[in-house]
Amino acid sequence: MSKRKIVGVMGRGEGARAGDVDLAYELGMLIAENGWVLLTGGRDAGIMDSVNKGTKSRGGLTIGIIPKTTDSISEAVDIVIMTEMGGARNNINVLSSDVVVACGAGGAGTASEIALALKAKKHVVLLNESEEAQRYFKAIGADLVHIASNPVEAVKIVGALLGK
Amino acid sequence: MSKRKIVGVMGRGEGARAGDVDLAYELGMLIAENGWVLLTGGRDAGIMDSVNKGTKSRGGLTIGIIPKTTDSISEAVDIVIMTEMGGARNNINVLSSDVVVACGAGGAGTASEIALALKAKKHVVLLNESEEAQRYFKAIGADLVHIASNPVEAVKIVGALLGK
Amino acid sequence: MSKRKIVGVMGRGEGARAGDVDLAYELGMLIAENGWVLLTGGRDAGIMDSVNKGTKSRGGLTIGIIPKTTDSISEAVDIVIMTEMGGARNNINVLSSDVVVACGAGGAGTASEIALALKAKKHVVLLNESEEAQRYFKAIGADLVHIASNPVEAVKIVGALLGK
Amino acid sequence: MSKRKIVGVMGRGEGARAGDVDLAYELGMLIAENGWVLLTGGRDAGIMDSVNKGTKSRGGLTIGIIPKTTDSISEAVDIVIMTEMGGARNNINVLSSDVVVACGAGGAGTASEIALALKAKKHVVLLNESEEAQRYFKAIGADLVHIASNPVEAVKIVGALLGK
Repeated sequence: MSKRKIVGVMGRGEGARAGDVDLAYELGMLIAENGWVLLTGGRDAGIMDSVNKGTKSRGGLTIGIIPKTTDSISEAVDIVIMTEMGGARNNINVLSSDVVVACGAGGAGTASEIALALKAKKHVVLLNESEEAQRYFKAIGADLVHIASNPVEAVKIVGALLGK
Repeated sequence: MSKRKIVGVMGRGEGARAGDVDLAYELGMLIAENGWVLLTGGRDAGIMDSVNKGTKSRGGLTIGIIPKTTDSISEAVDIVIMTEMGGARNNINVLSSDVVVACGAGGAGTASEIALALKAKKHVVLLNESEEAQRYFKAIGADLVHIASNPVEAVKIVGALLGK
Repeated sequence: MSKRKIVGVMGRGEGARAGDVDLAYELGMLIAENGWVLLTGGRDAGIMDSVNKGTKSRGGLTIGIIPKTTDSISEAVDIVIMTEMGGARNNINVLSSDVVVACGAGGAGTASEIALALKAKKHVVLLNESEEAQRYFKAIGADLVHIASNPVEAVKIVGALLGK
Repeated sequence: MSKRKIVGVMGRGEGARAGDVDLAYELGMLIAENGWVLLTGGRDAGIMDSVNKGTKSRGGLTIGIIPKTTDSISEAVDIVIMTEMGGARNNINVLSSDVVVACGAGGAGTASEIALALKAKKHVVLLNESEEAQRYFKAIGADLVHIASNPVEAVKIVGALLGK
């Protein structure tokens, strides 16, 4: 049995807040330290870029699921999966993750990933999301939705869900 | 120029509330009366099935974008587009619609369609959605999000957006 | 039961031979005259554009499954299904067709559609394809592959397959 | 720059010939020895399963792009990318590979992958494919198509294409 545990981290590319980008870097380091594989949307921007850099800084393995052949790819992605599928690749992101972490105040893309994850009965950790997001996703996702206010807390929840 | 105007209607399959299913039927009739084409997820359940029946009752044209080859298809769908794509077909639903109406209190699938529509800069009308949904999607979608409390109001907004 | 019969026509966009483009127009007329719905890749080029124009010239209904949001769309397409999926939309083309006709000497895109159709156990009519294509697809597709040398012959085969 | 070189190996699941399954195992070993990452359709059958086992036997890294959530997955796959996309995932297989090797006499699924690879201008090595396949794909793919009769020859071609 060689299947590796995969943690998907979702969040804004353009328009991510500086504080959330810092959280993503710390989250990436912790994912590597736990021996999990990181999966993201793989682009060279915002949360995606930062969490990949955090994971690589500790020698972890990083997968990027890229939407379009013309996108810029984070230099910290090891394995590039090219989908040429635009927004529909968001479903692959969450289906391929054992647990999903939404990092920071997300936009519509992140919202679609949280929703698709819940539709697939995946657990989602909302790390530093807005109050509106927390209330809405708790209302539709119930026990699949977890709230964390910092990366250490998020990783603790992920570890419990992965049986570690 | 023969391209037809398409209104996408999204909503729960299983688990739809009876009142929302009735709204969907009325909405379907109004879509046909306005000469628009109806597009849905096409399955034989809940909002999808009901809005298709409403549109057919007034002689309208109905398109169903089906997720899996094993799904049951509403008998009121004229044109079956088979995607074999699961949740990723939700992106096709919204990209192919000129305007999207989310009918009733939606679950995670509907949430993903609203979010993917906003990501693609499509206008979305929330018809009888929950207060949590209204607050959240207004927060991330701003002027692209419209609120309606009955089918007549929803269709009026759609008509204005389609320049009719 | 309102489901309409759909005939998918595949073929080169750019690089189609003039003779094949003429065959596509005639094929489109015959599809409309038989009351079938036409489904194509929907772009404004080659076989796709021509067969759509043929079908519209006789008042038929045309569906276009578009690969990218930036593609030019044939003006003879009534219903635009926007996939944003690149080459992966080829699978939707064939899954949504009751029978597939490959029109003219195809390139790699058409080859992928023939192959995906055979994988899904769909019947494929090769209309004026190359001898290499005929030999190869007969070898892997056996009885699912039919050979026609003109549109009348192709439509006769389609009619027999659709039980008409 | 951390991006890893990926070699995609395509071939029959069910129905693969015993000799081709052996070639796949040897090919997998050589891919690992060259330091490349292996990418396949990931299922627990035929060419896919065998090439993954060959790569793991030499400590290589293996990616599996899985079509459906209900598929059986090869135990020799390290990283599972779940697409829930059926045949459309074949496009992701080839877009994500730096070079594609079609191993053995393929069926319709493999044919679609060769064709989609050529459409995306990827180089394809046909290893022990049928004469009909060689003639057809040479006719439509020209210089992108390479012929090999054993794994050592195939890997030599891949190495030259990857600039190694």
